[in-house]
Amino acid sequence: MNKNQTRTLSVCLSPALLSSYNLEDSIVVVIDIFRASTSICYGIHNGATSIIPVSTVEECLKYSSSGHLLAAERNGAIVEGFNFGNSPFSYTIDKVQGKTIVLTTTNGTRSIQLSKSKRASKVLVGSFLNITALCNWLKIQGQSVVLLCAGWKENFSLEDTLFAGAAVEKLKDGFLIKDDAAHAAFDLYQLAKVDIGSYLKKSSHSARLEKLNIEADIKFCLELDTVDSIPVLSGDKLIKMI
Amino acid sequence: MNKNQTRTLSVCLSPALLSSYNLEDSIVVVIDIFRASTSICYGIHNGATSIIPVSTVEECLKYSSSGHLLAAERNGAIVEGFNFGNSPFSYTIDKVQGKTIVLTTTNGTRSIQLSKSKRASKVLVGSFLNITALCNWLKIQGQSVVLLCAGWKENFSLEDTLFAGAAVEKLKDGFLIKDDAAHAAFDLYQLAKVDIGSYLKKSSHSARLEKLNIEADIKFCLELDTVDSIPVLSGDKLIKMI
Repeated sequence: MNKNQTRTLSVCLSPALLSSYNLEDSIVVVIDIFRASTSICYGIHNGATSIIPVSTVEECLKYSSSGHLLAAERNGAIVEGFNFGNSPFSYTIDKVQGKTIVLTTTNGTRSIQLSKSKRASKVLVGSFLNITALCNWLKIQGQSVVLLCAGWKENFSLEDTLFAGAAVEKLKDGFLIKDDAAHAAFDLYQLAKVDIGSYLKKSSHSARLEKLNIEADIKFCLELDTVDSIPVLSGDKLIKMI
Repeated sequence: MNKNQTRTLSVCLSPALLSSYNLEDSIVVVIDIFRASTSICYGIHNGATSIIPVSTVEECLKYSSSGHLLAAERNGAIVEGFNFGNSPFSYTIDKVQGKTIVLTTTNGTRSIQLSKSKRASKVLVGSFLNITALCNWLKIQGQSVVLLCAGWKENFSLEDTLFAGAAVEKLKDGFLIKDDAAHAAFDLYQLAKVDIGSYLKKSSHSARLEKLNIEADIKFCLELDTVDSIPVLSGDKLIKMI
């Protein structure tokens, strides 16, 4: 049997559902569209040397005297006393080029660390910004892929699911799809793709983010293919793979 | 503010996601379409005195000398040595009327017990068979509702999500919908409702059940409004509420 016919493509809708997935020998793509995975893709593309994901604000603070940029977000807002949170506009070339960033976010960093602990063969970061570069690379690897939605506080989120659906659309011909979540994500994306921003108006996260007055962030996070870099976890750091 | 405008309608896509939901003061509807919740609705409608959901096959066996019917299903099949599993055709009038059934299934009974442990104000059982009776009753209660999909081994399943979407369609005008999963379930149901059976052909559970040669069960489980009873948890037993 052709290797490509045996590799599977799965969508895990929340890190709380990850126990159903065997990540060994699989490539995991961590997705946290609003906004951690978007900002990580943008920052790595803009020349950040590395981004170190940490679980807690306290761990982040341990790097205070390291010279690194410290980024901490909780409930969508920058934690007081930090350089910045997870708005992509904080990850521009002028701010991050040649810098290491230590980042803790409500949802995204936990998914990265869980994937590592479950021995994924590679942990990548995906966003609408690098979706085509990412999927083109995944197509030629001959390995199973798990698209891991970080969600919101361990629960299902529409925006991460839509990204997973968009990736399923690009990848499905070369993979075996066995799980229901991949079919659901694909179908939801078909409904949404004409105008993802409008579709997401009903999502809970949009309502939360609206309160934070970050409409420009949302628009930015939904732009397709603005970068061609792929962040990969190497040891404890996210670095540029391509 | 009108009481109806403050009550919420939520969809929990898996018992593994239940930690995000506060069930106190809410009515929980447990959904395990293939086949536990369908068979429970059918059995209660057909005059079973009560159905006792238990977690393990061992617990079920403790009732061996009770005179109750013992039903045990694992991985879709009847456990060896038991009267029956969770095929609805085992829950006909001639088999269950006036009887108590002790039931353990892969997915459904766990969700019932979790809901109880999280202090839901009421735990009901829903299926396509009683969807209109159930939703009509929920509409006039003035309480928040959580539709809990039992899923497959704690993971997302299409058929339970579609039922949740169908219930959201019937209930949405009288409730505040805050979670993304309710929107997703509603949208997926819109895609599927013309022919739910065909839509589900791609689901993982359909593939599993096909192997068991139970196409008649699947067709039965997707029939709408064939019963008007609603099972409710009373102590440790499911009994007929209406």
